[in-house]
Amino acid sequence: MNIAFQGVPGANSDVGIRLHFPDAHPMGYDYSEQVFDSLVEGEVDLGFVPIENSIMGNVDINADLIYRKPVAIIGEYYVPIRHCLLGLPGTSLQQIERVYSHPVALEQCRPFIQAIGAQPVPDFDTAGAARALAHRNHPGEAAIAPALCAELYGLEVLQEGIQQVKRNITRFVAIVTPRNVPLELDRAKTSLAFVTRHEPGALVRCLEQFSLHGINLTRLESRPIPENPFEYVFYVDFVGSTAQENVRQCLAGMSQHISLIKILGSYPVAQPPR
Amino acid sequence: MNIAFQGVPGANSDVGIRLHFPDAHPMGYDYSEQVFDSLVEGEVDLGFVPIENSIMGNVDINADLIYRKPVAIIGEYYVPIRHCLLGLPGTSLQQIERVYSHPVALEQCRPFIQAIGAQPVPDFDTAGAARALAHRNHPGEAAIAPALCAELYGLEVLQEGIQQVKRNITRFVAIVTPRNVPLELDRAKTSLAFVTRHEPGALVRCLEQFSLHGINLTRLESRPIPENPFEYVFYVDFVGSTAQENVRQCLAGMSQHISLIKILGSYPVAQPPR
Repeated sequence: MNIAFQGVPGANSDVGIRLHFPDAHPMGYDYSEQVFDSLVEGEVDLGFVPIENSIMGNVDINADLIYRKPVAIIGEYYVPIRHCLLGLPGTSLQQIERVYSHPVALEQCRPFIQAIGAQPVPDFDTAGAARALAHRNHPGEAAIAPALCAELYGLEVLQEGIQQVKRNITRFVAIVTPRNVPLELDRAKTSLAFVTRHEPGALVRCLEQFSLHGINLTRLESRPIPENPFEYVFYVDFVGSTAQENVRQCLAGMSQHISLIKILGSYPVAQPPR
Repeated sequence: MNIAFQGVPGANSDVGIRLHFPDAHPMGYDYSEQVFDSLVEGEVDLGFVPIENSIMGNVDINADLIYRKPVAIIGEYYVPIRHCLLGLPGTSLQQIERVYSHPVALEQCRPFIQAIGAQPVPDFDTAGAARALAHRNHPGEAAIAPALCAELYGLEVLQEGIQQVKRNITRFVAIVTPRNVPLELDRAKTSLAFVTRHEPGALVRCLEQFSLHGINLTRLESRPIPENPFEYVFYVDFVGSTAQENVRQCLAGMSQHISLIKILGSYPVAQPPR
């Protein structure tokens, strides 16, 4: 099974695929759009994309793409994020002058970088910074990236778990094209996107339908609509599936207040690691 | 009047301050936390921070800080974002090999960068990339930044408005310490943050209070609570102020479903530019 992710080998998405789909073949793409396009064009069987992180919040680009592209969610997966300082083999912490990584990883490890007296240098992504480090082969440089990158690029883990907030977890979803949604699937949780009509109170009237029909929302998010500044697409996750009568009635009740709705998928519930 | 912003002179926040507070003295700080701390410690009179962008969505760090720090919102301001390609004076587009900027600006201008056959290079921010370009003084390099940076750093605007989506607007808020909230203030709109109790349906029951009391929500957002993975702080903006009886009743009705609430401020309504 080929699984597409955004990034270079060793990225956190790659770490997540190896954790949850150990027999699959992870395939990295430069841009998130390419992950979706490779799926739609049949180059891969599954896409594996981050949706939200317990510290940073939403991964907006993927919310936007799941809404816009013809894909369906068939599962959710939690992946612990562990930032490691990687250097050339034999390097000591004292030698490190510059630390390369994605700005978010640099920020999450700011106290550690200050403590070793190094300079943070931004790069496009964590695993890419590790790969470039291996190519440049300069002993005064290090990268913040997953430990997997040490293995893949012949680097050494100089220090593990260097982030400030230790419990850092990303929730990913697995996406397929609609015709590849498995028939046998435990549809315990559903993700939905909708746009409300231009009328005061429309959003609250939509959300009221959930409590009216005894449905528990587990997540509520909004994203801007770039063509209509300061209008939003709302995303909800709830416990239940569209096969249930109360969910059908809820969606029917919402219909008079919305201009657009997309069922993003129903899938089994996962639990974040402790 | 001293106004704090995050970034170096010429950043979009600085552009916004010069647009809306032409007589003020803008003061740039490296980190968003420092903008809030300088305000709390009385170094500046006002903070000016981006909250949401019409393409990118929320500026999460500022939502988090407004919730955590002892500040109040006293106004909202819209600022058009216009990415320009800046180079050394006398440079032509054909000479440009590398374009430096914040990854978001690079992404928003990707087709333009490809069209001129240049390589995008990430930096921490747009104005910082322009300033560094002026220091390096290399004719093959350009930066994507506001036009104001050309003026401040002796650069030339090689091309204006190079982003893909032309209508790109950021909503900022002005913040002060609670004791500096003006007594005479048109309190037409209110921002609120709250955390719901751990019970199914609590979020919807809170939001129902708004429609029950005829209050129109203009924005609904959520942010993770890093200490409690996959729990959220919800942010709402609504039309009205806490001086109104229906708003007071709404807040009273919410109280049994929430564990925490913060009134972030009431302020006049602004309209985004056309």
